[in-house]
Amino acid sequence: MSVEEWLRVPTVKAERAARTRQRILLAAAEVFDEAGYERAAVTQIVERAGLTLGALYFHFGSKQGLAEALMNAQPATIEPHLESTGLQRVVDITLVWADRMKRDPILRAGVRLAVEQGSHGMNDATSFEEWRALMRSHLDVARAGGELRASVSPDRVARFVVGACTGMQVYAHLATKRADLMERVSDMWELLLPGVAADSMLHDIQIDPERIPDTGP
Amino acid sequence: MSVEEWLRVPTVKAERAARTRQRILLAAAEVFDEAGYERAAVTQIVERAGLTLGALYFHFGSKQGLAEALMNAQPATIEPHLESTGLQRVVDITLVWADRMKRDPILRAGVRLAVEQGSHGMNDATSFEEWRALMRSHLDVARAGGELRASVSPDRVARFVVGACTGMQVYAHLATKRADLMERVSDMWELLLPGVAADSMLHDIQIDPERIPDTGP
Repeated sequence: MSVEEWLRVPTVKAERAARTRQRILLAAAEVFDEAGYERAAVTQIVERAGLTLGALYFHFGSKQGLAEALMNAQPATIEPHLESTGLQRVVDITLVWADRMKRDPILRAGVRLAVEQGSHGMNDATSFEEWRALMRSHLDVARAGGELRASVSPDRVARFVVGACTGMQVYAHLATKRADLMERVSDMWELLLPGVAADSMLHDIQIDPERIPDTGP
Repeated sequence: MSVEEWLRVPTVKAERAARTRQRILLAAAEVFDEAGYERAAVTQIVERAGLTLGALYFHFGSKQGLAEALMNAQPATIEPHLESTGLQRVVDITLVWADRMKRDPILRAGVRLAVEQGSHGMNDATSFEEWRALMRSHLDVARAGGELRASVSPDRVARFVVGACTGMQVYAHLATKRADLMERVSDMWELLLPGVAADSMLHDIQIDPERIPDTGP
């Protein structure tokens, strides 16, 4: 082994570990998404991933650790698809989220586990607080740019939007298998913008689902 | 038995049956609220109610039938506490709902079961659609009374508010054990009213939690 090859060993190992972790995460997402937490078996997850139980426990510690990792992976599935800033960014986060819910099992499992966690004895608001902090950061930019009504608190808007999206998803999932989730999100902004955006911004913010490009598979 | 007594037999029986049904419902609500659907045992429910398994199956058919009855009992726990009309009524439904969530186990169990139902293989949007229809009926009154902005669809507002309340409750439950649920509901209306209420109504609609009288135990 040359010095160069020897120096690369940790990187190669880390890359392989990251790929293994991602394979388990994806297989777990599919199984949780189909069966829910209680009915999902870890043996089924590793079988689908083509890996061993040892790999699962090495990377996630337990079935619950896997569920926590999925709940907290939500924002990472959305952010790469976005370019806008300020209030438009917050709108876009929700539109891309509604679009990605149709095709991304990791996002879908994360949302489902976060909502249903009470039924399997978990009680972890982390994923909600992370969404809120993310939206809050973009709303702070909006505030600095004069995009918000003076009376509006960026943190309270963030808290409200996270809660509203959570519930719209639950309702849309039961009523229409999420077929109208995007429409519901767009509706939310139509109702919400007059109370949130500065008058000068009201007609600049785009809330039409069509503005979201095809985010791929 | 006199004729009068004989004629009263069906009424007495019906009253007794209604009381039995209500006792089972309350015991089931407490158990579901504490343990979630999967972990709740029907034996535990009838023991708490001081009744037999036979009574439970006679009135509700199955554990799932009991869960459905609780999910669909939600509006009935709220409506008796209300007097306002139109848009104010819709605001009041949500404020009283947030208040009753603190003290009414039947409401709490209904909400929890509706949100977590996916985890135990149920898929029933009925309770959401009933809330929506109820709010829609009051928003139709609001529309007829000129209380809504011309661009607003009563049905879409109803659909949005039901979803938003659902999600605010999930988030508040995890983050603060619902301590700030009322504040979140009031926040929602502060953000939402400019997009929903006609300008002439904007300052007439009361959204302060203080307006809700003590609704008792």
